[in-house]
Amino acid sequence: MGENLVYKILKKHLVDGELKAGNTISIKIDNTLTQDSTGTMAYLQLEAMGIKKVKTEKSVAFIDHNMLQQGFENADDHRYIQTAADKYGIYFSRPGNGICHQVYLERFSKPGNTLLGSDSHTPTAGGVGMIAIGAGGLDVALAMAGKAYSIKAPEVVKVNLIGKLNNMVASKDIILEVLRRETVKGGVGKVYEYGGEGLKYLSVPQRATITNMGAELGATTSIFPSDKKTLEFFKAQGREDEWMELKPDADAVYDRVIDINLDELVPMAAKPHSPDNVDTIKNIGKIKINQVAIGSCTNSSYEDLMKVAQILKGKKVHKDVSLVIAPGSRQVMEMISRNGALADIISSGARILENSCGPCIGMGQSPGTDAVSLRTFNRNFYGRSGTLSAKVYLVSPETAAVSAITGVLTDPMEMPVDFENLSVDRFITDDSMIIKPAEDGDKVEVERGPNIKPFPLNTELADSVSGKAVLKVGDNITTDHIMPSNAKLLPYRSNIPYLSGFCFSTIDEDFPKRAEENGGGFIVGGDNYGQGSSREHAALAPLYLGIKGVIVKSFARIHKANLINSGIIPMVFENPDDYGRIDQMDELVIDDAINKVECGKITVKDVTKGFEFDVIVELSDSDVEVIKAGGKLNYTKKTAN
Amino acid sequence: MGENLVYKILKKHLVDGELKAGNTISIKIDNTLTQDSTGTMAYLQLEAMGIKKVKTEKSVAFIDHNMLQQGFENADDHRYIQTAADKYGIYFSRPGNGICHQVYLERFSKPGNTLLGSDSHTPTAGGVGMIAIGAGGLDVALAMAGKAYSIKAPEVVKVNLIGKLNNMVASKDIILEVLRRETVKGGVGKVYEYGGEGLKYLSVPQRATITNMGAELGATTSIFPSDKKTLEFFKAQGREDEWMELKPDADAVYDRVIDINLDELVPMAAKPHSPDNVDTIKNIGKIKINQVAIGSCTNSSYEDLMKVAQILKGKKVHKDVSLVIAPGSRQVMEMISRNGALADIISSGARILENSCGPCIGMGQSPGTDAVSLRTFNRNFYGRSGTLSAKVYLVSPETAAVSAITGVLTDPMEMPVDFENLSVDRFITDDSMIIKPAEDGDKVEVERGPNIKPFPLNTELADSVSGKAVLKVGDNITTDHIMPSNAKLLPYRSNIPYLSGFCFSTIDEDFPKRAEENGGGFIVGGDNYGQGSSREHAALAPLYLGIKGVIVKSFARIHKANLINSGIIPMVFENPDDYGRIDQMDELVIDDAINKVECGKITVKDVTKGFEFDVIVELSDSDVEVIKAGGKLNYTKKTAN
Repeated sequence: MGENLVYKILKKHLVDGELKAGNTISIKIDNTLTQDSTGTMAYLQLEAMGIKKVKTEKSVAFIDHNMLQQGFENADDHRYIQTAADKYGIYFSRPGNGICHQVYLERFSKPGNTLLGSDSHTPTAGGVGMIAIGAGGLDVALAMAGKAYSIKAPEVVKVNLIGKLNNMVASKDIILEVLRRETVKGGVGKVYEYGGEGLKYLSVPQRATITNMGAELGATTSIFPSDKKTLEFFKAQGREDEWMELKPDADAVYDRVIDINLDELVPMAAKPHSPDNVDTIKNIGKIKINQVAIGSCTNSSYEDLMKVAQILKGKKVHKDVSLVIAPGSRQVMEMISRNGALADIISSGARILENSCGPCIGMGQSPGTDAVSLRTFNRNFYGRSGTLSAKVYLVSPETAAVSAITGVLTDPMEMPVDFENLSVDRFITDDSMIIKPAEDGDKVEVERGPNIKPFPLNTELADSVSGKAVLKVGDNITTDHIMPSNAKLLPYRSNIPYLSGFCFSTIDEDFPKRAEENGGGFIVGGDNYGQGSSREHAALAPLYLGIKGVIVKSFARIHKANLINSGIIPMVFENPDDYGRIDQMDELVIDDAINKVECGKITVKDVTKGFEFDVIVELSDSDVEVIKAGGKLNYTKKTAN
Repeated sequence: MGENLVYKILKKHLVDGELKAGNTISIKIDNTLTQDSTGTMAYLQLEAMGIKKVKTEKSVAFIDHNMLQQGFENADDHRYIQTAADKYGIYFSRPGNGICHQVYLERFSKPGNTLLGSDSHTPTAGGVGMIAIGAGGLDVALAMAGKAYSIKAPEVVKVNLIGKLNNMVASKDIILEVLRRETVKGGVGKVYEYGGEGLKYLSVPQRATITNMGAELGATTSIFPSDKKTLEFFKAQGREDEWMELKPDADAVYDRVIDINLDELVPMAAKPHSPDNVDTIKNIGKIKINQVAIGSCTNSSYEDLMKVAQILKGKKVHKDVSLVIAPGSRQVMEMISRNGALADIISSGARILENSCGPCIGMGQSPGTDAVSLRTFNRNFYGRSGTLSAKVYLVSPETAAVSAITGVLTDPMEMPVDFENLSVDRFITDDSMIIKPAEDGDKVEVERGPNIKPFPLNTELADSVSGKAVLKVGDNITTDHIMPSNAKLLPYRSNIPYLSGFCFSTIDEDFPKRAEENGGGFIVGGDNYGQGSSREHAALAPLYLGIKGVIVKSFARIHKANLINSGIIPMVFENPDDYGRIDQMDELVIDDAINKVECGKITVKDVTKGFEFDVIVELSDSDVEVIKAGGKLNYTKKTAN
């Protein structure tokens, strides 16, 4: 029974567990990447582990998110990451060098390697046959420290590409078609492996658009084989020595196969407000548009911008449309500035933005009130553009460029262009904006701006744990309740002490003060506590405020994991009725805590009310050790010696 | 007795008054310009006047300030200005077309014309022999409505340029030398007219750098003759038919003459935090730098960027320096993208920003904590960069580019470059991003986003004016102090109620609250109060907060005019020592205010301290009527019927 490509790579990297869909396995991570909005925390965590030098084959820190730099915080964060990278053996891609996923693909990707990145679009590198997975900062820090990464072994779905795309139909339309069929929840627990005869017509940049936006399926990752097309790309990057062929066995087994007839595809768009709300441009009709944005890690390659330049050449942007274009990397920017394509783009009336994530993450170029914005990006969630009333459509570069000229959503097949020079034999490869780390990191001093505070560390679990129930909340508390993440707080992602002052501020402004005055204590909550995003800050802020345990009716999965990572005991009422018997500010005591955590059941005394109740602590063996050590970082330090 | 150039042009435009230094005169305004951060207010005012079509020869609305667009407000403002321009007969330069002063110079300037612009760097156009003056939005709106503009007939200072600049010494160094000698207050009531044999070596872009930064002298404006060099520029712009020769009489009389030996000049910098805090690069020494920013209306011409490109070619930006470059216009951007210069800049590791004001007005690229930033801009006021602890040095493009390579402040004469191709016979002239107004404005509907609020109106002057001295400040208060204009506030330029909450916030966060709690009152200040930009928001926010009068040792010209326009009484201590006798929160009373304003001298009672002092209110006859009516708009409406 033949193996698919995903399991071939996983097998080579397997450290622990049985490689069978649904099983928890751990795999060796060859490479890591971070970007700046998650990077500061990841490097603070790495520092807290006491690691002298990263243990990965190669790790890279990128700056691409916070490039507008409004206020000193961003520049300070860049400096912190640059000096930390220098000290700990990490390559540093300077602001201006490009978007992490684009630059990674160009200069760092390697078929057959594993990559863990603190950005959800890390799967982009699957375009050259890598297993590339997005994760939280601590997991990436642990990978840099040499720890294996634990995942559920995925189901593998083969996407069988048949035929060839018609002119003006893009690889973006392929992933839009996959999203239309599979939905944003369809990929959970799966990896999408692309194959079929259609592969031979798809360049690496086209493939990377697909693996990038595969993240929107909720998939673990997506992957393409490494073939002749991949070799062409590596040759053009001057890195053919890093290429190797990779393909599934001829009789490879998959959990499911999807067929896509490329020659039947037509230009499509994801309508507001979800990437899977897909329809054809024709069906949507010629709606009036106000803005067109081209770029992002999805569609900002040389090939993408060459197409855009050839569509725009000799044409003018419609007077009621603002067309903004952000090339994906300095390499792309330099190539198109040397060959005249950029001049053609400028001549059309486009606005050129920095090589960065930019409007895709809401950093600038928010549309006007009620505006329609066409974007070549990967997400069109409600409000993500910075304008709540805006209607964002996700489209291919072809559709975007053509529509910028007409002023209405336009099927690019109506204005065909006979594209040429979409690839080159050899790109300009100048890595002078990628700084190699110091040979001797000991001599490097990490520069920490006043907004960058050390990562909070918990202490070892004591045998008796006591404190007040400093907060009691109801059901369905989200991570947005626990640690709000609005525009005012986002610049403070490197400053847990400051952020902590706003912990639970939407519910109870006095909570941070009360927690501190009482030396921390416990949080009591209802059902589905911690639902929402994966942000670590929702555990780190309570940790900073001295919270020792959280007692609830039920937890959301990721937040529970974050609590464990922070050394905060996650407890579930054995009898949910006990929730009603506790009042805020009751004094709670856990005796014999270490033994009780080990056995999975704890008796909590409510000293104020004079009664006892039992709570369940559901932990794996290694989770128990993490809690006893006072969090995953302490545990890692302890076991490292 | 021969006439100087300034009086020749003023004479041709004189509408009212005797043309004699110190007299109030009014002049016909041929042209106007607005930018977007002052433009919305100006067009709201124009609309309030009920004008159907502007009466100027040509008026232009530019978008160059709010181009980051975080939130819907900016895009809405752009749309409002675009539709209002269309309706009222104004040319509209789209976002992405460039910085107003650079584009104006290239495409709209005309020797011998008068230009009134709602931006303090409007004098840039003096580089081609225009009388170009910065003013508040209301004055510009009135000029568009066909009203004459009232100024004090200036003293004229001749700056006699002798010899020729050495290689690597820039015209920026000329204006820095003028600022060193004349200070930021030295130009009040004056126009600087440049002449001398050195003229023949200075191109229009070089001249425009000087007239641009002449604004920092506090001067009414600065001007160069229109000569062969000017003709060269107009030819290259394909506009030789709009050129005419203009020069002073051979025996022209000046109030003062300054000689500058160009061949003795060396590269200089304005040190923190004032444009007149000038020293030579050599004297300042090789301080370590963190950021270099090239661009702004001062130094972003084709010539400037060609020099920068030739310095950077084949070199790399120092690893600890962030070099950001914003070309001045789409014309510049397209030219350097077609000739390879932009590619050389990108190759060096520079970050390319949009053609806009950008970091010069604190829109992004704030330096890190304690960072040293070299900027080719015109202002280095405390906090203007967005980082209070940053140290900003104003330098030439040559100094900036050379230092970006070395990583320390470096005299460019140490790294000489034999520049070539600094000009062309014919620029690419493509006005497709300049939209002509509708033939029939009646059919155009003006689009107004929800953040665009009506501007505040004052009430008629009462006979008794009283209130507390709700704020007391020192010397050299800038409009950046009065109404900060950082990236967080700039999007709210169309929303005075919101902005007012941040009035004086860099000095005293409680001021807005205190003013409101006390029902407004008075502001007491020192010398040169209101220096800096032309923003009328620095008068409109105090008006909104109930400020009735400002009592200072001396005023900056444009701000005083803005106070009058807002109906706020501008008062100057007759005896400057009285400044020291008043404390913040003293109760001040003006009796018989209407008569006293008419006679030009007011007695103010300090009720708290129990003493009286006299203040001078220097107003023209029409200014008196404006103050009595409660502002110029009220006055205009009153007199229109």
